[in-house]
Amino acid sequence: MSFRATVLTLYPEMFPGHLGHSLSGKALERGQWAVDAVQIRDFAEDKHRTVDDTPAGGGAGMVLKPDVLARAIDHVSAGDERPRLLMSPRGRPLTQERVRELADGPGVIIVCGRFEGVDQRVIDGRGLQEVSIGDYILSGGEPAAMILLDAIVRILPGVMGNALSGVYESFEGGLLEHPHYTRPQVFEGTEIPAVLTSGNHGAIEKWRRGEAEKLTAERRPDLLNQPVTK
Amino acid sequence: MSFRATVLTLYPEMFPGHLGHSLSGKALERGQWAVDAVQIRDFAEDKHRTVDDTPAGGGAGMVLKPDVLARAIDHVSAGDERPRLLMSPRGRPLTQERVRELADGPGVIIVCGRFEGVDQRVIDGRGLQEVSIGDYILSGGEPAAMILLDAIVRILPGVMGNALSGVYESFEGGLLEHPHYTRPQVFEGTEIPAVLTSGNHGAIEKWRRGEAEKLTAERRPDLLNQPVTK
Repeated sequence: MSFRATVLTLYPEMFPGHLGHSLSGKALERGQWAVDAVQIRDFAEDKHRTVDDTPAGGGAGMVLKPDVLARAIDHVSAGDERPRLLMSPRGRPLTQERVRELADGPGVIIVCGRFEGVDQRVIDGRGLQEVSIGDYILSGGEPAAMILLDAIVRILPGVMGNALSGVYESFEGGLLEHPHYTRPQVFEGTEIPAVLTSGNHGAIEKWRRGEAEKLTAERRPDLLNQPVTK
Repeated sequence: MSFRATVLTLYPEMFPGHLGHSLSGKALERGQWAVDAVQIRDFAEDKHRTVDDTPAGGGAGMVLKPDVLARAIDHVSAGDERPRLLMSPRGRPLTQERVRELADGPGVIIVCGRFEGVDQRVIDGRGLQEVSIGDYILSGGEPAAMILLDAIVRILPGVMGNALSGVYESFEGGLLEHPHYTRPQVFEGTEIPAVLTSGNHGAIEKWRRGEAEKLTAERRPDLLNQPVTK
């Protein structure tokens, strides 16, 4: 059973978007994962197909109605054990560890908010787990959902083939990645660091580890203080 | 002069992607911003149009060649003062403050990495500012570039019209956003909190502020310890 994503959105036409290209697109064609975008508006019951209303207590913006969204969620998740996620800047920040956990599961149901937000009662009542991809504001949950899916799909079995195996990546061991170099040997007067062309694998590993530690300390000292989870 | 993005990529067909829909898509049609995706491969000079090579020092993956990428960057940025960004998990984490700074400028040149990474000498030699959208690994820089552009475009003058004005958003004042509610008054037995329908605007503001503070303390205590920049 391959990984299956169901996305609840007011813009189903945005999917698969960039996920339909490159490695994720080829994996989608091969059936190694699937994405189904469902129009929330189809679950409105009035003749205007209303999905939002003004915020209780006043203020600008509109709020997604709990009744319409609950019907949409219930429709796609009946008898379904996939986690229910809501993309939201208020959510738990996404990490590579969380990406791995989700990739190991059967799939995800992702609710994409638009407007000002989603009624809190449907978040609570349907057990939506709020996920944030970063501390900035997007036009809606759709771009964030595509980021989450991109990160998951690239580590699904068979998607990247051998391309991934043995590659040291940022956040492995809690560090940012060391610098990379390739040919030409001299670029605009600067040579590749001599250690990398020495053939001394122990020295190369030591240099890379040292560079990764230095870079992390300079740019992201916050990562050094976190417990390492692998 | 409207905001202009130039994206250097091996997958120009991914653009504008989701940015061509909804409000950002309408703003693109109206000429309130522009995006130009440039194929890095067009700047390779050998007959195989090679853009990458094996990493110096060994290891899996491939590294984008500095000479090819430098030619591409020089071609699109001649006489151009737009900041040059490289989407990378090693970069400075994107914040809403940075989004605002970039939106106030003339535009951006964005380099999208693929494979294992980009030769460090072109990052240094062309003054690329590394930007990270979060602590997870993507298939390439393209999805991240679209996130950055989505965040920028939504706050460009005229793009969201009045939809944005007066809306309290997450990270304003360094806090996550308070919960939202809308009709119906009772949803599955739960009422909208009474204060929100009291008509007492002072009490509503106080409740919202209190909820935002409580939520931030619970979920993101790290935000409370940051200096507030507005």
